[in-house]
Amino acid sequence: MILEPIGVIHTPFKTKEECPIQPVYSSDSLGRVEVFAEYEQGLQDIETFSHLYLLYLFDRSGSIALVRSTFLDDEPHGIYASHHPCRPNGIGLSIVKLVRREKNILFIEGCDMLDKTPLLDIKPYLPQYDDIPDASEGWTAGKQRRPKPEGRE
Amino acid sequence: MILEPIGVIHTPFKTKEECPIQPVYSSDSLGRVEVFAEYEQGLQDIETFSHLYLLYLFDRSGSIALVRSTFLDDEPHGIYASHHPCRPNGIGLSIVKLVRREKNILFIEGCDMLDKTPLLDIKPYLPQYDDIPDASEGWTAGKQRRPKPEGRE
Repeated sequence: MILEPIGVIHTPFKTKEECPIQPVYSSDSLGRVEVFAEYEQGLQDIETFSHLYLLYLFDRSGSIALVRSTFLDDEPHGIYASHHPCRPNGIGLSIVKLVRREKNILFIEGCDMLDKTPLLDIKPYLPQYDDIPDASEGWTAGKQRRPKPEGRE
Repeated sequence: MILEPIGVIHTPFKTKEECPIQPVYSSDSLGRVEVFAEYEQGLQDIETFSHLYLLYLFDRSGSIALVRSTFLDDEPHGIYASHHPCRPNGIGLSIVKLVRREKNILFIEGCDMLDKTPLLDIKPYLPQYDDIPDASEGWTAGKQRRPKPEGRE
């Protein structure tokens, strides 16, 4: 299956070093989702939601590794037990807050992706299905984000 | 970008008519995620999580429409304000409960996808980031799923 971007995500982050690891660390990070004009119709009623899932391409990630350490600790973890960008079928998933819509532009809070990231899809966050407070934090429990080691992806 | 499946999702649902609309309606629906052997390493530590995001291909959805009604009401809504499968870059996103892992097989609860759906990616559900209880239900607030109209996708 071949994917074609439906838009571009504009964020304050020009390099990986500036980029936060998860949206929760970046809730003040304002961004704009530019949906290409030919898809604008598909945004009808999106402004009724406060939070959205963005699916996008990790277009500047490094080489794929199935097991690697992350920014949370030095232990290696499987790529499917983390959100690390260097993964097969490099699709990113972030939940962002929708501040307002102006035609084909969505103004968002909580960006954690690089500027000019290709957008693939938008889905509404539905708390009646997606809010699972008793889910396990797994191996990430109690871990705090560490500063990125120099030169580390 | 070209996507290659990393596995197959086995579920009890052979046809669209049997398939639930959202995982919450199907929490008893048991399924198996078969991750191809060459990606098994990437599952390391996944068993520490209770809930996972599955990203998969809508490989049997109908033609794309940017605005359409859904199973919740008769009103048309933009495709990006719904999870309807007939969308550009037809990628499905579901949260499932991980019951147990046996090597490259994940036993899951809460399937809402068709049997033999191509799997693209797995990411852990992290309640510290993904649990947003005050998110708006948007236009879906107060709507109940209706029976599928005959012949409707």
